[in-house]
Amino acid sequence: MTVSSIRAPVRIIGIDPGLRRTGWGVIETLGNKLTYIACGSVEPPETLPLASRLLGIHEGLTKVLNEFQPMEAAVEQTFVNKDGAATLKLGQARGIAMMSPAMFGIDVAEYMPNLVKKTVVGAGHADKNQIQVMLKILLPKAEFKRADAADALAIAITHAHHRSSAMLRKAVMA
Amino acid sequence: MTVSSIRAPVRIIGIDPGLRRTGWGVIETLGNKLTYIACGSVEPPETLPLASRLLGIHEGLTKVLNEFQPMEAAVEQTFVNKDGAATLKLGQARGIAMMSPAMFGIDVAEYMPNLVKKTVVGAGHADKNQIQVMLKILLPKAEFKRADAADALAIAITHAHHRSSAMLRKAVMA
Repeated sequence: MTVSSIRAPVRIIGIDPGLRRTGWGVIETLGNKLTYIACGSVEPPETLPLASRLLGIHEGLTKVLNEFQPMEAAVEQTFVNKDGAATLKLGQARGIAMMSPAMFGIDVAEYMPNLVKKTVVGAGHADKNQIQVMLKILLPKAEFKRADAADALAIAITHAHHRSSAMLRKAVMA
Repeated sequence: MTVSSIRAPVRIIGIDPGLRRTGWGVIETLGNKLTYIACGSVEPPETLPLASRLLGIHEGLTKVLNEFQPMEAAVEQTFVNKDGAATLKLGQARGIAMMSPAMFGIDVAEYMPNLVKKTVVGAGHADKNQIQVMLKILLPKAEFKRADAADALAIAITHAHHRSSAMLRKAVMA
């Protein structure tokens, strides 16, 4: 391995899954430096049948993965709430959000919501507003119109911070 | 439309989603006649990461869809239980089971478990054994080694019985 390959930035996609809106955010990390690349959300029409909405999420994410060619992916561990029907809906969208990067041969890491908040804001119980304020500091060029795109960037940042230990765990377990 | 095209059999795939095992069953229906085509289950290795297991379900179903070229698909409406983590796992597998046929441009119908039981056995509270006994009568040539393949055939039969009214609903709503 040459020095230049060690110093190459790693491009990461973070995904915040949801049936109505699936947020995505792409960043690059090199040492302690983070660079904003792009973000957005996939919103398949709610009038479509469920199978078509799920296909819409997959097609939207596939387009993003094709365009930005991330090397690693991270998805938020879904909060399991008491509403079974809502959990099921989220689970269905999350299945697509996990599978779509795997189709590109990309490893998909998972992070708990409180670790995402702790990594970005420094506290596990931060609200969405605090996350967005910190995002503007960590990624000054980031332009996000919606909370789910911001959350996706926060997940990508979390992976940038924890990816070394995650990869070490994987190497140890292999 | 010619008489022969009206009398052509309709090939249906039923899918019983699960993260460990996703059952599938293909039948043909023509009037009141049902014909068994094939069944089986997709079982991605449990040692793989979640994203790879979900991709395994998608790849397995895609292979089946390619081989048997069904014209319509049906998936069981997942039972929402009190265990949020189990519901989430099932939801993720179900998302893949709904999306994979949609990638082939096939409509995906959904049926509640008690409607499946009522259609196949005649009672909404039938057990798995009763379903398998009735399947051997309805599809004498069917060979299923596992309950999830049998369940998938039961879902396909349910769609064969209810597809006309489902298509009518769709036409009315369009």
